[in-house]
Amino acid sequence: MTIKVHHTLLMTGAAGGLGTAMRDRLKANCEVLRLSDRADFGAARAGEEMALADLADAAAVDAMVKGVQAIVHFGGISVEAAFEPILQANILGVYNLYEAARKQGVKRVVFASSNHVTGFYKQSETITLDHPARPDSLYGVSKAFGEDLSRMYFDRYGIETACLRIGSSFAEPKDRRMLASWLSFDDLHRLVTACLTTPILGHTAIFGMSNNAVVWYDNSAARHVGYVPQDSSDPFREAIYARTPQPDITDPAAIYQGGGFLFQGEPMTAHKSSK
Amino acid sequence: MTIKVHHTLLMTGAAGGLGTAMRDRLKANCEVLRLSDRADFGAARAGEEMALADLADAAAVDAMVKGVQAIVHFGGISVEAAFEPILQANILGVYNLYEAARKQGVKRVVFASSNHVTGFYKQSETITLDHPARPDSLYGVSKAFGEDLSRMYFDRYGIETACLRIGSSFAEPKDRRMLASWLSFDDLHRLVTACLTTPILGHTAIFGMSNNAVVWYDNSAARHVGYVPQDSSDPFREAIYARTPQPDITDPAAIYQGGGFLFQGEPMTAHKSSK
Amino acid sequence: MTIKVHHTLLMTGAAGGLGTAMRDRLKANCEVLRLSDRADFGAARAGEEMALADLADAAAVDAMVKGVQAIVHFGGISVEAAFEPILQANILGVYNLYEAARKQGVKRVVFASSNHVTGFYKQSETITLDHPARPDSLYGVSKAFGEDLSRMYFDRYGIETACLRIGSSFAEPKDRRMLASWLSFDDLHRLVTACLTTPILGHTAIFGMSNNAVVWYDNSAARHVGYVPQDSSDPFREAIYARTPQPDITDPAAIYQGGGFLFQGEPMTAHKSSK
Amino acid sequence: MTIKVHHTLLMTGAAGGLGTAMRDRLKANCEVLRLSDRADFGAARAGEEMALADLADAAAVDAMVKGVQAIVHFGGISVEAAFEPILQANILGVYNLYEAARKQGVKRVVFASSNHVTGFYKQSETITLDHPARPDSLYGVSKAFGEDLSRMYFDRYGIETACLRIGSSFAEPKDRRMLASWLSFDDLHRLVTACLTTPILGHTAIFGMSNNAVVWYDNSAARHVGYVPQDSSDPFREAIYARTPQPDITDPAAIYQGGGFLFQGEPMTAHKSSK
Amino acid sequence: MTIKVHHTLLMTGAAGGLGTAMRDRLKANCEVLRLSDRADFGAARAGEEMALADLADAAAVDAMVKGVQAIVHFGGISVEAAFEPILQANILGVYNLYEAARKQGVKRVVFASSNHVTGFYKQSETITLDHPARPDSLYGVSKAFGEDLSRMYFDRYGIETACLRIGSSFAEPKDRRMLASWLSFDDLHRLVTACLTTPILGHTAIFGMSNNAVVWYDNSAARHVGYVPQDSSDPFREAIYARTPQPDITDPAAIYQGGGFLFQGEPMTAHKSSK
Amino acid sequence: MTIKVHHTLLMTGAAGGLGTAMRDRLKANCEVLRLSDRADFGAARAGEEMALADLADAAAVDAMVKGVQAIVHFGGISVEAAFEPILQANILGVYNLYEAARKQGVKRVVFASSNHVTGFYKQSETITLDHPARPDSLYGVSKAFGEDLSRMYFDRYGIETACLRIGSSFAEPKDRRMLASWLSFDDLHRLVTACLTTPILGHTAIFGMSNNAVVWYDNSAARHVGYVPQDSSDPFREAIYARTPQPDITDPAAIYQGGGFLFQGEPMTAHKSSK
Repeated sequence: MTIKVHHTLLMTGAAGGLGTAMRDRLKANCEVLRLSDRADFGAARAGEEMALADLADAAAVDAMVKGVQAIVHFGGISVEAAFEPILQANILGVYNLYEAARKQGVKRVVFASSNHVTGFYKQSETITLDHPARPDSLYGVSKAFGEDLSRMYFDRYGIETACLRIGSSFAEPKDRRMLASWLSFDDLHRLVTACLTTPILGHTAIFGMSNNAVVWYDNSAARHVGYVPQDSSDPFREAIYARTPQPDITDPAAIYQGGGFLFQGEPMTAHKSSK
Repeated sequence: MTIKVHHTLLMTGAAGGLGTAMRDRLKANCEVLRLSDRADFGAARAGEEMALADLADAAAVDAMVKGVQAIVHFGGISVEAAFEPILQANILGVYNLYEAARKQGVKRVVFASSNHVTGFYKQSETITLDHPARPDSLYGVSKAFGEDLSRMYFDRYGIETACLRIGSSFAEPKDRRMLASWLSFDDLHRLVTACLTTPILGHTAIFGMSNNAVVWYDNSAARHVGYVPQDSSDPFREAIYARTPQPDITDPAAIYQGGGFLFQGEPMTAHKSSK
Repeated sequence: MTIKVHHTLLMTGAAGGLGTAMRDRLKANCEVLRLSDRADFGAARAGEEMALADLADAAAVDAMVKGVQAIVHFGGISVEAAFEPILQANILGVYNLYEAARKQGVKRVVFASSNHVTGFYKQSETITLDHPARPDSLYGVSKAFGEDLSRMYFDRYGIETACLRIGSSFAEPKDRRMLASWLSFDDLHRLVTACLTTPILGHTAIFGMSNNAVVWYDNSAARHVGYVPQDSSDPFREAIYARTPQPDITDPAAIYQGGGFLFQGEPMTAHKSSK
Repeated sequence: MTIKVHHTLLMTGAAGGLGTAMRDRLKANCEVLRLSDRADFGAARAGEEMALADLADAAAVDAMVKGVQAIVHFGGISVEAAFEPILQANILGVYNLYEAARKQGVKRVVFASSNHVTGFYKQSETITLDHPARPDSLYGVSKAFGEDLSRMYFDRYGIETACLRIGSSFAEPKDRRMLASWLSFDDLHRLVTACLTTPILGHTAIFGMSNNAVVWYDNSAARHVGYVPQDSSDPFREAIYARTPQPDITDPAAIYQGGGFLFQGEPMTAHKSSK
Repeated sequence: MTIKVHHTLLMTGAAGGLGTAMRDRLKANCEVLRLSDRADFGAARAGEEMALADLADAAAVDAMVKGVQAIVHFGGISVEAAFEPILQANILGVYNLYEAARKQGVKRVVFASSNHVTGFYKQSETITLDHPARPDSLYGVSKAFGEDLSRMYFDRYGIETACLRIGSSFAEPKDRRMLASWLSFDDLHRLVTACLTTPILGHTAIFGMSNNAVVWYDNSAARHVGYVPQDSSDPFREAIYARTPQPDITDPAAIYQGGGFLFQGEPMTAHKSSK
Repeated sequence: MTIKVHHTLLMTGAAGGLGTAMRDRLKANCEVLRLSDRADFGAARAGEEMALADLADAAAVDAMVKGVQAIVHFGGISVEAAFEPILQANILGVYNLYEAARKQGVKRVVFASSNHVTGFYKQSETITLDHPARPDSLYGVSKAFGEDLSRMYFDRYGIETACLRIGSSFAEPKDRRMLASWLSFDDLHRLVTACLTTPILGHTAIFGMSNNAVVWYDNSAARHVGYVPQDSSDPFREAIYARTPQPDITDPAAIYQGGGFLFQGEPMTAHKSSK
């Protein structure tokens, strides 16, 4: 749509991978794109304004949120990490963000959740939005926290949120797992736009994937969002097969959707049988 | 299909909005299109015959039905109204129609039900054909009655029926709610044709919507009907946004799929909290 | 409970089978038991008052309802019948009852629905409250109408209703089908009492059965009602087997839960195969 | 894909209808296509090798399997038949095949199951992969056996299998039932290719149908396979209607998805009512 | 019940563990208890008759079945074994039994299936009758075959069957796993009696367990059978804990419901990870 | 059971309401009951040892856990509170606890979760363990975090946890809401004992309620735990009705299971309609 539903739109995590990719695209969605990250990442360009903030700093977050009509929250830790930074950025940080939204009257949030919220489902199953969380990492648990917190802020305070369970959003898919989990930047932008503009969003999770042939996710319970992906990992498939080995199907990283995250941080041990 | 599966097809409610839109289109489906409504609405044209009937008049309905092979029932009240006319047209009238079909040996009916059968689901959820009725109005309850009655006529007497839960079938979508609920006239014709021609119909409900991006409905349990919509509300979206205000998400008319119907007739009061 | 939650309680259908059985029992539930039926059935006794009314007469129904805090609705047609009396008593009559409740501020209704709302499920399956209606008769369809109408009056106007899908409520079970469908009078009273006194009723259906060993119903989705049956058909089983023949398992009356209702009124024909 | 994931691929049943149709197509999937059937059906062509085997002969099956990386199992009885040949080919034969795979280290099998595993569902319902087996014939039971056995070989020994519930795979659809059940040869090849090449297959059933408008099946729980059909029965619809009669909807062959199979072998009798 | 619904009742596997335990108990269910096993196991006692038969011998099975009104089928292999004897007794044998029932007009069968049909579910989950088969052994697969075959004989020929997924039916529970899976002999008799005498059985599976506190099974979808267990493993619990070690929760025999069966026959290997 | 499955059992929150009630009861479950709380609450008695710890202090938590075989975790904030103490005690504290368990090799945890994890379901519905979290407060969100974190520690590291969604555990029920949510101290002890002693626990949630007649919860998916409540709120019902007013069914505290929690902390506002 060329109609800008929101005048001022806040995008957090603007210096990160997703933020960088969305920076120009999201200008089509607003008159003013307010950008935030933890540290200075350069000057605002035309149509932008800057609002740096450490997510763990409630006052800074409140200032960051003031005056916007909607938030696209890419900020925080986006990989497995020690618990302390996750606690600060993804737990306290998300609480600060929703408290600021509540106080400042912001009514719609697009929250970057993650496929790692459900990373302990298998690569040989298709999950729906009714499947309960099975996080694969501290990072995944922190994203499940954000989903639960935002659900409470909707039920209790009427703030609408879409929790995007983003797969692998890169310029192109890099390995066999990403054939299923890949989300092109253009499809990510379509998804964010759908969440920002659907008449009634409510609170919903939605898997963030392109229209890949091989996929582990079924978004049919979130049709009210209006997300219609248009890209696919398929054109990249042959090249990926040519340069990557067959998966070892007894390796948890091949069995579970979470993939290599299972061995990030304190590695998984539950599969080690005594026999 | 250019094959006319039924020689004589009855369309009731022929003078109404849907009937007017389908009058010419349905000629492709039969040799003779019998048209009915409550009052005279002009002469039959080529390929048509007239059979006026008050649906509450059993004898007239019997005469109307005699000799047809299938019925497209658009007749009756199609908006919220006082109970008495709904009782006559949509309850007694539908009973009369099915009794006539049973006596006259008509084996397939396409019944115009309504999205108001499920109008108390939320605009932020996607419902399937397994969700129970939650009618939003006396009109919606009368359509639920028609669905249940036709189910009984199938289980007990073998008369096949498709209950079309029609959304908003107009020349084009008029407001933000219709982005989800719009059914183009061509898609309505595709849907009726699918119901009339699928080899085995049984008894089924099916949501009557175009291929809109934002949608509250999932027809995947009725694939045996073979309905494949080809239109979409999306090209109308920007113009609608430009001329209509943002919905107030605390307004029941925005929360529930039934929309403005909640305040037609005796207005909804259940949302008025004492606190 | 010996606490009388409601001062004045209306019981309709007071002259019928269920009404007669409950007349004395329900006095434990209120200070004043208002009794209604279509025609005079004798004088009020101590603790009772009379309020005769034809359910199809809106004014009479309004007078009948005025001043009560809750309604136990056993009135109307309780067997298969021609459509006209069903229309008057079970459709128009139920509408009149709910309109009167809405106008008079009555907030809780116990509605005698029927197992015939789901009579086309099989005697070899266990159904839950999530199974959609499959009525077996015009009577069953009229009870499904009452369930849908009362759902709408709850969602729209906040009137709580329990729809009791009563099986076979007699002094004792009479045949093999009633081993599954029997509801003792004491258990019926327990069920009505639970519906009247549970803190929050909302709108719910609940199967009305005793604690029979053989049963086709699962009430586990209505635990908030607090119904705990204490009788069982089992002690009657041997005597019933001794005096009744084995069922013919190709007979629809043995296949379907509706039993003999399938051949009441205009008999079922859908099972007549052409082969 | 032009990448040949498997060097040597075994196709059994190579002389049958599916085998003949896939013989040339599957050469794109491997360097060497090993062909097997019960009896000599001609010489190997370029890129092929022959490995004749009676499936009931464990040693022959072991030799047939040795040295391949994956198996496409079209072999065995593919119509209703007496139990003895079904027992030999579809039960003992499938056991022999999986034992050989286990011993020889073959890790992926594409198993031709059948829509007759679920043939007692109705043509007026859409089934998913969660619906339990309701086989319509001895043949259907034998295919259910293969699905269960392969599930056990996956859970216990880690051999991945896709059970293709193939509908009607012919050059074109022949009758009204095949409008729903038709699988073009090209789509069959797409399906087999998807099963052979998806990174992680696990154990799954998947309905083998083209992208027909009228269809009884929902594959949404098997998206990880990556099957995207591209053909449709629709272009054949008018010609089929022109040359075939309307179905008799009281005929079990029209009621149930299994169609004419219900009267193959010892004919169905359960529909013969005593009334 | 003291009413003997069937005059002559056939019990196969009469010389085995379950047969021996039920031999006297089942005399209460019939006038004549016909006993069968593969080899002579002694003379008939009062109220009994002998009908030895190898289940793989169709003619012998037909003679065994002739003249009975119902069958309790405990015969066949009841442990993990080589495939050949399983094929003869549990696959061909069950086919022979149902063919004999069809020819001889026997209308009800109680079939001893097994918890090993679902042995690959976990000991930390509760399964219902809607969970698909996940057999843990060749034996489990053969019992799944019997369930599917009997389903087909019901749908196609109207022979009613209850598939008893018997847990561990012994005089008392022997180990920690049996706390969940134990079925007392008296409860087994109650279960068989319920299946033989419920008015309409249809085709159903039902888990065969006593009223144990710890249990992995939910029979609520088979309430029409009328099985009400009265024994429990709980009184044996302390003694079992005192004499048995804590389970190793990384051992597949503790993870999966199938327990030690996973290492009977060709042992499970799928859990052996490469990491 | 009088068998003490664990030698040393840790109970946190020992000075709180639940801890005080369980202190003597849990001695039956172990040789040594290690007690912990944040501040000194008196000397250890016979069979006890003390291990004070602030849950936010990882080193203290590690010391507290060292040497025990199982943990009953009642510690942390148990009411709605500001986010900072919840963050320290219920988020960082639970992480510290599981890290300590992982490092110290503790394999089983009984975690006091809360009915406030699902507090936004309605008092007129029955929820199962498949219903997703809908927390009603910051406290409820923190308990959902604990459930998700412990799920990850099970899937990834094999530590078994039962998440007890405790209702209202007091000496007796105090108000109408507690008729549904009451958990007697003896039943709480039965529940903890079941979780500690079931052979295989896995990871599970389980609602912690007595055998109340009116109840909002269905534990049938957690039968493997073996919890069989024996108390009920019913004997207290009349006295509660006598001293408490009828609920206002338009009050969110009566509509939702969370009750008064909705107005603890920053009060709910989402129900305030603009109309």
